[in-house]
Amino acid sequence: MKKSLLFVVASVALIGSLALTQTPSGPKHHVVFQLSEDNGPAWEAVVIHVNNTRKALAEDGGSEVEVVFYGPGLLMLKKSNTAFEERLEKLSKDGVKLLACRNAMKNRNLKTEDLFAFAGQVDSGIAEIVRKQEAGWAYIH
Amino acid sequence: MKKSLLFVVASVALIGSLALTQTPSGPKHHVVFQLSEDNGPAWEAVVIHVNNTRKALAEDGGSEVEVVFYGPGLLMLKKSNTAFEERLEKLSKDGVKLLACRNAMKNRNLKTEDLFAFAGQVDSGIAEIVRKQEAGWAYIH
Amino acid sequence: MKKSLLFVVASVALIGSLALTQTPSGPKHHVVFQLSEDNGPAWEAVVIHVNNTRKALAEDGGSEVEVVFYGPGLLMLKKSNTAFEERLEKLSKDGVKLLACRNAMKNRNLKTEDLFAFAGQVDSGIAEIVRKQEAGWAYIH
Repeated sequence: MKKSLLFVVASVALIGSLALTQTPSGPKHHVVFQLSEDNGPAWEAVVIHVNNTRKALAEDGGSEVEVVFYGPGLLMLKKSNTAFEERLEKLSKDGVKLLACRNAMKNRNLKTEDLFAFAGQVDSGIAEIVRKQEAGWAYIH
Repeated sequence: MKKSLLFVVASVALIGSLALTQTPSGPKHHVVFQLSEDNGPAWEAVVIHVNNTRKALAEDGGSEVEVVFYGPGLLMLKKSNTAFEERLEKLSKDGVKLLACRNAMKNRNLKTEDLFAFAGQVDSGIAEIVRKQEAGWAYIH
Repeated sequence: MKKSLLFVVASVALIGSLALTQTPSGPKHHVVFQLSEDNGPAWEAVVIHVNNTRKALAEDGGSEVEVVFYGPGLLMLKKSNTAFEERLEKLSKDGVKLLACRNAMKNRNLKTEDLFAFAGQVDSGIAEIVRKQEAGWAYIH
């Protein structure tokens, strides 16, 4: 009786500590992409890569994905970048967070109204990537 | 007597939970390299970097290394890329896994027989990198 | 009485295992930057990015930051690179570790006296990044 109680307690401690080292419920996979390049192959690639990654991981527990835009990569989120508007809006509607770095916005004197309405914002693009890695997200650049 | 049993159980729980957060036995270090660039300095560099990394980590518990080829980087694994064949085959014989992304193969209409015989394949290069990071592998790009 | 002891032991096991999965005391955040590019936009960017990241994380527990220079990126640490001397020395004085890869030094026949006096050295730049990721540091490239 006492022994079985001991094992229950030990199991609870074990399961508890396991749970605490994992990301909370929801999709099984968590991925943060960095988009810091100027207009060029990286812009085409990031859309394709996010879609392919989500499709591959959908068969294995699903994924939560965000893309952090900073440096010259921020320009991909400008409203005037109509060539990518449809593809980016589709990503956003699919639940992918597209996040603009406020440091990059300041550097380039871009305001919220200069960016696509579906873009979110973070104080610092790199700090955001750091926080996500700390929370167990995979990082892709 | 009962107290000592308690401590044994607690220790087992502690060691068990520790073990579960680490990569299984084998080499101490686990590294996944991304090769997504077209022909150029990145191709020369990846061979040198993998070799140097393995050498440095050999003195400290050894390493398990894989390189994931996707985007235009997939072309490095084409049989016709004879300039790199010997160096890549040497890596493969040394135990480094060289993995082609099947999405990139489809995009470029490349079949298994178009790639070096020593190349492996994964469904999605990025999903592979994500899974490795989730399993505690270091990521280098 | 015995039950309460059990819970104390279980809690100790739980807290102990938690503590062991976290980075030791000091700043809350730990970030390793890779600088492997030749002279160009990446050199300007790394200084700005390290400063912005440290500023953003200063409001949230602080950060320990190091930058690993390898490949052609090593050249940024050459004494003759006077255009960046002041900015790099400022980073170093702010506590950011600037580390030269000894493999890259050998490849380019550069000696300790060819590099800025405030630069440190590591056996292998990539092995250093691997070790930092293993120790829970976020990686930015």
